[in-house]
Amino acid sequence: MLIDLECNEYIEKLASGTPTPGGGSASALVGALASALVNMVANLTVGKEEFQEDEEEIREALKSAKKLHLSLQEYVDGDAEAFNKVMDSFRLPKDTEKEKKLRSETIQNAMVGAADLPLQVAGCCLDVLKLAEVVVEKGNPNALSDGGVAALLAFAALRGALYNVDINLGSIKDEELVAKLREKGEEVLDEAASLHDRVTKTVEDRLA
Amino acid sequence: MLIDLECNEYIEKLASGTPTPGGGSASALVGALASALVNMVANLTVGKEEFQEDEEEIREALKSAKKLHLSLQEYVDGDAEAFNKVMDSFRLPKDTEKEKKLRSETIQNAMVGAADLPLQVAGCCLDVLKLAEVVVEKGNPNALSDGGVAALLAFAALRGALYNVDINLGSIKDEELVAKLREKGEEVLDEAASLHDRVTKTVEDRLA
Repeated sequence: MLIDLECNEYIEKLASGTPTPGGGSASALVGALASALVNMVANLTVGKEEFQEDEEEIREALKSAKKLHLSLQEYVDGDAEAFNKVMDSFRLPKDTEKEKKLRSETIQNAMVGAADLPLQVAGCCLDVLKLAEVVVEKGNPNALSDGGVAALLAFAALRGALYNVDINLGSIKDEELVAKLREKGEEVLDEAASLHDRVTKTVEDRLA
Repeated sequence: MLIDLECNEYIEKLASGTPTPGGGSASALVGALASALVNMVANLTVGKEEFQEDEEEIREALKSAKKLHLSLQEYVDGDAEAFNKVMDSFRLPKDTEKEKKLRSETIQNAMVGAADLPLQVAGCCLDVLKLAEVVVEKGNPNALSDGGVAALLAFAALRGALYNVDINLGSIKDEELVAKLREKGEEVLDEAASLHDRVTKTVEDRLA
């Protein structure tokens, strides 16, 4: 599993000239790092008397962030697997009409999988951004920059995941599905962009 | 070493309630991932006939990206060590005037180190962004989204590193030095912001 590699090994593998892991897997990993940072700020907040007023909300954020970084860690491998399925489908035989038809269908299914998975990654990153706002607003101010970094990383990972949606949409023939996935991606991006701008502005105003 | 941890272990450690690793270390790691992605696109480009015209420039980018992700990997631990030095300096005795003076000087030196290190991380990330532009413009277009993700991650890591500069500047008493470090940070940020916007616009126009 990619997620079980040492950080330096993962980086070496990413740098190599093999198509996986690539930007999709790296985006999921960065999303997981962002979620872990939210988790860290929440951990530095709960149980401290001065933040008792928001204790329950921070505890909820802690629980959700934990779930999110576990999901995003799975997508680090999931993205590479979805891409490998696409590569495999292109290697299917295409000598007979029947083989051609089966190959074409398998390619299409694999492409839909390869577009849908990073869309799920983007959705998780949006949720991380929402939690980043909670810990920036109500978490331990000593960890303000960590909450800010979480927001920066979650948004970059989200956009990176959407690049991986877009690059696969071009090969999907079902136009209705393409339109649906594209619309979903745009919705996620719009919501995330406002959140990111708001959270980073708060952090930067306080750091200045 | 943090960089030798498995990715999932690093994420767990980041998520925990200990102050290191935090957003500074994570920013260096994300910068290293961005640089590795540049490296990947360059690897998928060199030696291919259709990109021969730009072969030399891509080879240079490959070499520089390799150096950068090695430096950034070192900063993953370096940032945590710089922060730990700050924590240690606060634990020095302060019973006599001599001890007070020594403690205060040690704290100041540690703070300067903790501000300077992420500034170096930000500088490396700016260099990664420059290389991301090269591989997006002249690299294998099949890896366009990977070059795009490299630019997104490098810029987020750069801003994250600068948050860690800013949070330490507040505790440095040498106003001239603070002004110098702040100015340097702003320069890096300005140049990076234009680069990031240009590269991501190119990628997004081509993906649309």
